[in-house]
Amino acid sequence: MKAIGVLTSGGDSPGMNAAIRAVVRYGVKNGLRVFGIERGYCGLIDGAIKEMNFASVAGIMEKGGTILRSSRCGEFLTKEGREKAAKNLAMLGIEGLVVIGGEGSLTGSVVFHKEFGVPVVGIPGTIDNDIAYTDMCIGVDTCLNTVVDAIQKLKDTATSHERAFIVEVMGRESGYIALMSAIATGSEAAIIPEVPVNLDQLAARLLEERKRGKLNCIIVVAEGAAKAEDVARKISAKIGYETRISLLGHIQRGGSPTAFDRLLATRMGVRAVQALLDGEKCVTTVLSAGKIEVMDTEKILSTKKQLDLSLYEISMILS
Amino acid sequence: MKAIGVLTSGGDSPGMNAAIRAVVRYGVKNGLRVFGIERGYCGLIDGAIKEMNFASVAGIMEKGGTILRSSRCGEFLTKEGREKAAKNLAMLGIEGLVVIGGEGSLTGSVVFHKEFGVPVVGIPGTIDNDIAYTDMCIGVDTCLNTVVDAIQKLKDTATSHERAFIVEVMGRESGYIALMSAIATGSEAAIIPEVPVNLDQLAARLLEERKRGKLNCIIVVAEGAAKAEDVARKISAKIGYETRISLLGHIQRGGSPTAFDRLLATRMGVRAVQALLDGEKCVTTVLSAGKIEVMDTEKILSTKKQLDLSLYEISMILS
Amino acid sequence: MKAIGVLTSGGDSPGMNAAIRAVVRYGVKNGLRVFGIERGYCGLIDGAIKEMNFASVAGIMEKGGTILRSSRCGEFLTKEGREKAAKNLAMLGIEGLVVIGGEGSLTGSVVFHKEFGVPVVGIPGTIDNDIAYTDMCIGVDTCLNTVVDAIQKLKDTATSHERAFIVEVMGRESGYIALMSAIATGSEAAIIPEVPVNLDQLAARLLEERKRGKLNCIIVVAEGAAKAEDVARKISAKIGYETRISLLGHIQRGGSPTAFDRLLATRMGVRAVQALLDGEKCVTTVLSAGKIEVMDTEKILSTKKQLDLSLYEISMILS
Amino acid sequence: MKAIGVLTSGGDSPGMNAAIRAVVRYGVKNGLRVFGIERGYCGLIDGAIKEMNFASVAGIMEKGGTILRSSRCGEFLTKEGREKAAKNLAMLGIEGLVVIGGEGSLTGSVVFHKEFGVPVVGIPGTIDNDIAYTDMCIGVDTCLNTVVDAIQKLKDTATSHERAFIVEVMGRESGYIALMSAIATGSEAAIIPEVPVNLDQLAARLLEERKRGKLNCIIVVAEGAAKAEDVARKISAKIGYETRISLLGHIQRGGSPTAFDRLLATRMGVRAVQALLDGEKCVTTVLSAGKIEVMDTEKILSTKKQLDLSLYEISMILS
Repeated sequence: MKAIGVLTSGGDSPGMNAAIRAVVRYGVKNGLRVFGIERGYCGLIDGAIKEMNFASVAGIMEKGGTILRSSRCGEFLTKEGREKAAKNLAMLGIEGLVVIGGEGSLTGSVVFHKEFGVPVVGIPGTIDNDIAYTDMCIGVDTCLNTVVDAIQKLKDTATSHERAFIVEVMGRESGYIALMSAIATGSEAAIIPEVPVNLDQLAARLLEERKRGKLNCIIVVAEGAAKAEDVARKISAKIGYETRISLLGHIQRGGSPTAFDRLLATRMGVRAVQALLDGEKCVTTVLSAGKIEVMDTEKILSTKKQLDLSLYEISMILS
Repeated sequence: MKAIGVLTSGGDSPGMNAAIRAVVRYGVKNGLRVFGIERGYCGLIDGAIKEMNFASVAGIMEKGGTILRSSRCGEFLTKEGREKAAKNLAMLGIEGLVVIGGEGSLTGSVVFHKEFGVPVVGIPGTIDNDIAYTDMCIGVDTCLNTVVDAIQKLKDTATSHERAFIVEVMGRESGYIALMSAIATGSEAAIIPEVPVNLDQLAARLLEERKRGKLNCIIVVAEGAAKAEDVARKISAKIGYETRISLLGHIQRGGSPTAFDRLLATRMGVRAVQALLDGEKCVTTVLSAGKIEVMDTEKILSTKKQLDLSLYEISMILS
Repeated sequence: MKAIGVLTSGGDSPGMNAAIRAVVRYGVKNGLRVFGIERGYCGLIDGAIKEMNFASVAGIMEKGGTILRSSRCGEFLTKEGREKAAKNLAMLGIEGLVVIGGEGSLTGSVVFHKEFGVPVVGIPGTIDNDIAYTDMCIGVDTCLNTVVDAIQKLKDTATSHERAFIVEVMGRESGYIALMSAIATGSEAAIIPEVPVNLDQLAARLLEERKRGKLNCIIVVAEGAAKAEDVARKISAKIGYETRISLLGHIQRGGSPTAFDRLLATRMGVRAVQALLDGEKCVTTVLSAGKIEVMDTEKILSTKKQLDLSLYEISMILS
Repeated sequence: MKAIGVLTSGGDSPGMNAAIRAVVRYGVKNGLRVFGIERGYCGLIDGAIKEMNFASVAGIMEKGGTILRSSRCGEFLTKEGREKAAKNLAMLGIEGLVVIGGEGSLTGSVVFHKEFGVPVVGIPGTIDNDIAYTDMCIGVDTCLNTVVDAIQKLKDTATSHERAFIVEVMGRESGYIALMSAIATGSEAAIIPEVPVNLDQLAARLLEERKRGKLNCIIVVAEGAAKAEDVARKISAKIGYETRISLLGHIQRGGSPTAFDRLLATRMGVRAVQALLDGEKCVTTVLSAGKIEVMDTEKILSTKKQLDLSLYEISMILS
């Protein structure tokens, strides 16, 4: 193998730049030419591809987002689009690909590999933490700290005004961010896709706690489980608190990555290049028991990541 | 004067605790008894009043919100409410009041002083920065840094996805937070109550910049000027960017206060007690040319604070 | 079991309060009385012990340090001291102990258990990350982020002035913090106890990189491996950079804990109480493959924690 | 005037990049060519000068340090050095200069202007806040927040271990940072160059407070007033606390600038260019009563900036 390409695809997540840096530098140190592909699979199709070197990734580790930019690329869903992509790779002599992204991006990598035989190593970068077999995805730790910091700020106001806040956080399929941030901030409840919630019971519990002297109430809602305003409307009358909603939105995706995400991304970037050099064909890097391993991408995609629901119980007991 | 009271009223703002601490400690050191009144004017009416000492305000300076809690108190708008309040003060021998809050709270202090003769010193605590004659209100600096930090996070994502973000920030009457945060983040535009905006012209300018290679676009909107979703709807089709909105909401009120807000609040708290000891009747502390002064509260309330619009021009020129 | 005690011992670390909170609340919810012991083993000897409840641990999770305070207790190293401690426990009916701390504190727990039979569950809280069998100790993640943040600040100045900084960080026995922070900041080198360093070779490499245009140089030194000023003296003449040293010191111990540390501490606190209820005698909670388990404390203490040295190689390759 | 140059000189401070950005963009928008001079006066002598445009300053506002780099330039202290500098300016047609830096840098600007007639506008950028007539210098607010954040972390450990910390902060001539950070953190004492300190009296006061139940003690020392280790040695025996020292060092210079510093630097950068266009010859921008003005640089340099010592008294009363 003489040349590889790297791209970031789908929603951006903090730490992607550290992964790009590791892929480029580890590749170059191992004698490879490394090409950066812009805007995900779109750049692969459009030929927005340029060679990178040590200097092109200097000073990027601390930056949120991705210097290669990202997109959700409709054209790559078509056979024609993927054929263009394969031709561009062949033209430049690129013999292997590193794809940094979430579930959709990894799915694309499998399809592409099967059709054209190009070895593709995935790196799970998504704040949703919904990729199976890896303890964490790149960006999750940063996102969680951003959410915790935001909820802590809301608590100041909630306590001062004896209010309830219904905070809507990311997580269409997974309640990971909602549940973990609820535990880490001592919030009163987490409403997540994995566990059905009885709002009447919840309201009754909160009312009980208020009577015992609690001055505020924070309920964290995963966007995939409910809308904050619906929760607010349904329970505000019952809980005896003035209720406000807060939609954290896109600030959850940004920010300088935490140490954890920089390390995870760096290690996964190195491991991805090693996998290509080792002749792997269609695998994804995973964090498993503290080690970075690779695992068959199709196997990963065919498994639903489970949330540890004993933590849900803990969140209820301790708040 | 032997005893004074202190309360926080209206929307909370970071730094209020530093002001309470200064009032209590400076008062006590000057031989006064200092009473803390809970939940603003409501506590004055309900008699939720307790004596404070050095220890009661230990370790609070770094905390957002207000340990005395706050509220908007409808009953204080009635003569009956204020009579109860005056009786409670008389009963406890409280001869002067420090009121920390925004425009509505200061207005209440004037009415109360006129009716019952109680000396009242106001301290401007509001993130809206809409109190005249003071360069800054307590909480504004912290709020501004929170907003700048949030916009910086959005920029990561905006650049990675080549998107526009319409960010709605606080400011019903004043565009201060919107304008300053737009300048401090190099955002493309600020939409503020003080300056009418032509969305067609703005869209044309953004489209022009995009053609010259700009990868993202941030428009900061003060809530008093427009709704982010209206702005997004009106210009998204024209500017050639995928457009998202972000409502920063209540996180803008919280958080550990910045050094600036802690110092401002501490100095104003000390000055407020001095003013009561000096026999002032109805004044408010202001930051003027780097010094803390007091000024007639009615005069302050009768003046509309002006935003320095040369900064608006600068924001347009530099972005 | 009807009553348990909890103490924090040795150097404090961020997240200890989250562990205390979990022990108290989970204990109380399971019908136990929970006693807080002040200043580590000293309080056990002096009888500085008070019952805690849900309210005593409200709002502490976000705070650095430990509300129970900590100490290194010489008297507990004596038989007499430990006898006093055992008597105090018996007198209060405390039948089990949770000890949050580092290696010395866990060693004390084993000695105490063996002499008096009191069941003791340890929770590894130390920023040194030098406890075997657990992937992480409480406080390490926060410490690492503090160090990364500080080095990032030094880089600003290093680049602006084309300087080298020799940064000394914590780690008497372990190079974990030094190595991980070096990788996470893209620093030029980590000097750690686990790997002998040839300063001449290092200087030659740095000089080479400078000639190729590098504008700054950061070397992270674990305190157990070398003194920053010695490193500076030995290599500054050779590397062609103006050299400065920075001792990060005790700021590495403080600060509001990260989400990771809050979650780890909460889960370990819960698990420790479960272990006492399950009849465990002398175990310690560990994070292993993403799960919280308990393991024989003596076995843990008799094993030296290994640093993953493949990461050392990565740090050299990527910088 | 058709072309101007901009340089940063002396110790770097956060916000310098925002000033550079404003000078470049405001200059270009007003029809000027703007040249960036590298490494302060050294680049002027060596001819390390390149033209800048809108794109060269994109995305730099949030960065600490200075993209133009900085130095203390010995050669500029010689007539020969300054002659070379003047020739380089003439050769490129640069008719005015903006110098961003502290006292030494402004002094250099006056000497240079007098010898060669080149109009020079200074912008006070130094974390020492020791430039007269301006309420604040660029970088001071960021530095102060960094120091407050660090002391807050030390307080966690100080309280947990019932210790004293002697914290040494920047300030050779000025106690500004030490005094303000002491007030903003409720520290027990500030030792500053402006006020002689009686360590025996200080120790007696701290001992008294400890007896009344205080759990920690923080003393902030400006480097120009004393060395932390000397203070520690002299008072540790007397105050009844275990004592540690902390040298904050160069982390005080770095970091992403606060909103305040970004705004101050932006406004000063714009004002500096306006001053050159207005035909000013040798002035410096100052923040005075909330407005940015210019003032004769020699007058500024001949005046010693005074610290408001009423704040010293407040720091003693409130702690």
